[in-house]
Amino acid sequence: MRWHYISKIIGVLLIFLSFAMVLPLVFSFHYNDGAIIAIIESIAITLIAGFCFVFLGRKSDIDFLSQREGIAIVALGWTAVGLFGAFPFFLDGTFSSFTDAFFESVSGFTTTGSSVMTDIEATSLSILMWRSFIQWLGGMGIIVLTLAILPFLGVGGMQLYKAEVPSPVPDKLTPRLADSAKILWAVYAGITALEVVFLLGGGMSFFDSLAHAFTTMPTGGFSPKNTSIAYYNSAYIDYVISFFMLLAGINFALYYQLLRGKPLAFWRDTEFRFFMILIGIFTLLISFNTYGSVYETIELSFRYAFFQVISILTTTGYGTADYEIFPGLSHIILFSCMFIGASAGSTGGGMKCSRIIVGFKYCYRELFKLIHPRSVAQIKINSNVVTDDVLRSIMGFLGLYIGLFVICSILLGAMGIDMITSFAAVASCIGNIGPGFGTVGPTENFAHLPAMAKWLLLWCMLLGRLEIYTIIILLVPEFWKK
Amino acid sequence: MRWHYISKIIGVLLIFLSFAMVLPLVFSFHYNDGAIIAIIESIAITLIAGFCFVFLGRKSDIDFLSQREGIAIVALGWTAVGLFGAFPFFLDGTFSSFTDAFFESVSGFTTTGSSVMTDIEATSLSILMWRSFIQWLGGMGIIVLTLAILPFLGVGGMQLYKAEVPSPVPDKLTPRLADSAKILWAVYAGITALEVVFLLGGGMSFFDSLAHAFTTMPTGGFSPKNTSIAYYNSAYIDYVISFFMLLAGINFALYYQLLRGKPLAFWRDTEFRFFMILIGIFTLLISFNTYGSVYETIELSFRYAFFQVISILTTTGYGTADYEIFPGLSHIILFSCMFIGASAGSTGGGMKCSRIIVGFKYCYRELFKLIHPRSVAQIKINSNVVTDDVLRSIMGFLGLYIGLFVICSILLGAMGIDMITSFAAVASCIGNIGPGFGTVGPTENFAHLPAMAKWLLLWCMLLGRLEIYTIIILLVPEFWKK
Repeated sequence: MRWHYISKIIGVLLIFLSFAMVLPLVFSFHYNDGAIIAIIESIAITLIAGFCFVFLGRKSDIDFLSQREGIAIVALGWTAVGLFGAFPFFLDGTFSSFTDAFFESVSGFTTTGSSVMTDIEATSLSILMWRSFIQWLGGMGIIVLTLAILPFLGVGGMQLYKAEVPSPVPDKLTPRLADSAKILWAVYAGITALEVVFLLGGGMSFFDSLAHAFTTMPTGGFSPKNTSIAYYNSAYIDYVISFFMLLAGINFALYYQLLRGKPLAFWRDTEFRFFMILIGIFTLLISFNTYGSVYETIELSFRYAFFQVISILTTTGYGTADYEIFPGLSHIILFSCMFIGASAGSTGGGMKCSRIIVGFKYCYRELFKLIHPRSVAQIKINSNVVTDDVLRSIMGFLGLYIGLFVICSILLGAMGIDMITSFAAVASCIGNIGPGFGTVGPTENFAHLPAMAKWLLLWCMLLGRLEIYTIIILLVPEFWKK
Repeated sequence: MRWHYISKIIGVLLIFLSFAMVLPLVFSFHYNDGAIIAIIESIAITLIAGFCFVFLGRKSDIDFLSQREGIAIVALGWTAVGLFGAFPFFLDGTFSSFTDAFFESVSGFTTTGSSVMTDIEATSLSILMWRSFIQWLGGMGIIVLTLAILPFLGVGGMQLYKAEVPSPVPDKLTPRLADSAKILWAVYAGITALEVVFLLGGGMSFFDSLAHAFTTMPTGGFSPKNTSIAYYNSAYIDYVISFFMLLAGINFALYYQLLRGKPLAFWRDTEFRFFMILIGIFTLLISFNTYGSVYETIELSFRYAFFQVISILTTTGYGTADYEIFPGLSHIILFSCMFIGASAGSTGGGMKCSRIIVGFKYCYRELFKLIHPRSVAQIKINSNVVTDDVLRSIMGFLGLYIGLFVICSILLGAMGIDMITSFAAVASCIGNIGPGFGTVGPTENFAHLPAMAKWLLLWCMLLGRLEIYTIIILLVPEFWKK
């Protein structure tokens, strides 16, 4: 592990982060909301820290990174950004404890959206803009991470997507990565801008439109309103946001293909079809389930079902309805959605649809082999054979996901939290969703949990966001050996 | 598929079942409890059906069975026995609907112990004896199935145990199977007899001692008392039953080794150590968790924790305490135990400890491979290499287990049942445990569920009991093709 390499890259990340803080600074000047000093201090701290890290790594000329260094950069980089991103929250006094500020910041950068803010609308607007903006930055990071970096590192079966977007090759990391990233970010920024326009068209203020667009595209879910999207009580806004959450939950490699003149890539993609079918079935089931029992009209039950299913399945976590008052079937479906998640290569979290598909085919193959013991059945996705290596990586990922869910739930329970809340909080944080069930339901937040629970959950968010392997590997002593 | 072979074996099974009904008949004579006619009718129906099946298969001379025929016999045999075993319950009028009688019977033969009997103590003693006895018969079936038949059929990774107990070989099915079965059954009957003696020593009546021994050894959990083991309110009985549940949760191949003069086989067995460590850790955690909050003394919290952990982990399902009033941590642990289950080759259900161990090692290997990509790491159990085939079979099993748990929970939710009850009822039935959480908790039963839910859950019991593959494969059209 060449630590000076790692230090240099993290330093550069922090310098970029300090530049990013200029956005809330501008808002703070504009609204004169009293957060100016706190933001300037945060910029100074982050900038100085960034330069220190770059200075520590000054001797390195980065042209080649080993797999382990790549993993360390991803894990430590996300943690560092979460840590320094917490300063505006802490220095402004939004939170009295650094734990809370760090939790909110990590929840932002991991695009989770679980909040410990008890009265959102009482917070400085510039701080709320920072809260939304870090989700947007986190989303940018995730797209490049999952489509261009993880396939190259061979993590969690993301090798499946090696061919979709040109990945960096070992001896020439930077140029190709930069090219791919630019195109993906252009798509990301373009759809975000489009959403702002649509939301403005629905009568939402510019601040709210920007804040929501910043948290829709990364499937983040932070809202500047206490009651989230329910605040607007508007069918137009509900459908617009549903539509953009849906866009955010699709593999960005498909947009890349679209830009290269291959619009049919969408319909040829197994994961895309599966994702759409799931949304369709679950929306219908919840519509029927809530019609009559919760909502009086079909329009209402359909709209709320559609919004909730997309919000949870894409792991955004916005709310228009308190789904805890829905009947049991809706609970079970939404709880299951927390695990399934969105498409791989999107900004969504969870296990990802493609891994669920591979898991399903894996199980089916075993059944098939019982019938035809001598058959050599291969598993295919989009007519490409999934190699044994990728298959093992995916099954290992699913196993780790469930295993860690159980272990973290037990740990949370040991902190005195009830079963439903523990299960839901962990599922919500590993899946990068936001709300859960029980005392962390859609109308509540994570503020009341003990500090230790918050540290565990913010670790869960990083775990889920960085595809589990990247974080859990840091606990394997072997990783740190020379 | 040679249907006459299958018909003949099922016919023989039913004839044996009709002989088994002589036991409750004797009790009915002794207590003169009015169930005599019902039992004689049941014997007649079962015997006639048995002879009909044998007659249909009269032309076959069974010496060799294909894998598919083996699977069909296991699945259809268990279903047939469950069906005819329901007659005493139905004809005696214990249940007014055949659905309930069938549910209770399948719950018995699959050694689950989920009951739809609302007032157990008001039921004829001979019928209660039948209810206990079918669990004991189910347990006998399971031991031979998992240790001698499934390894030969190559189902769910049970091939791991091929070497432990001499399995039948394709060209000579009967003689070796019969030899192994005799030894295993002798162990099973011997421990059962020992438990009767110990329970009698604690002042339990002969009827109760026999009924409980009949349901402890198969990790069944039916009790002739409404309040299960809590009825006796005796530390001695709690510990005796805990101890025998523990014995029942151990791989019977180890007893086989013990009889062959290898007592150290226990300590050398990874699964045995894992099972014991789990019981130790979970008992301690629940003891601490309930001490002070539920129980006043350490003795009480330890005793109830020990009993509950063993009862759920071995998938027996007896109750001494209403664990629903325990704090959250205890709920999470007990709920997790429902999935883990006992040892493979025991009468317990669930995923089985050995599969959990293999799953854990599988995930760890993926982490290890990220660090050493070129390594060829093999997974070992008891210093035997687990082959890729077995590994895939086990991972497929775990995947199917969780996938079917989710799908069946959604189906149960669609019948209007709340989330916790749905999750717990399905987990409890697939895991062959008995009680769950919510409205199917330890102080309640399954009687209030709609008939459709009962049919789904009895299918779940068969699914779990017959190692999933054997039942789910019947749904694959390919299986039925020539």
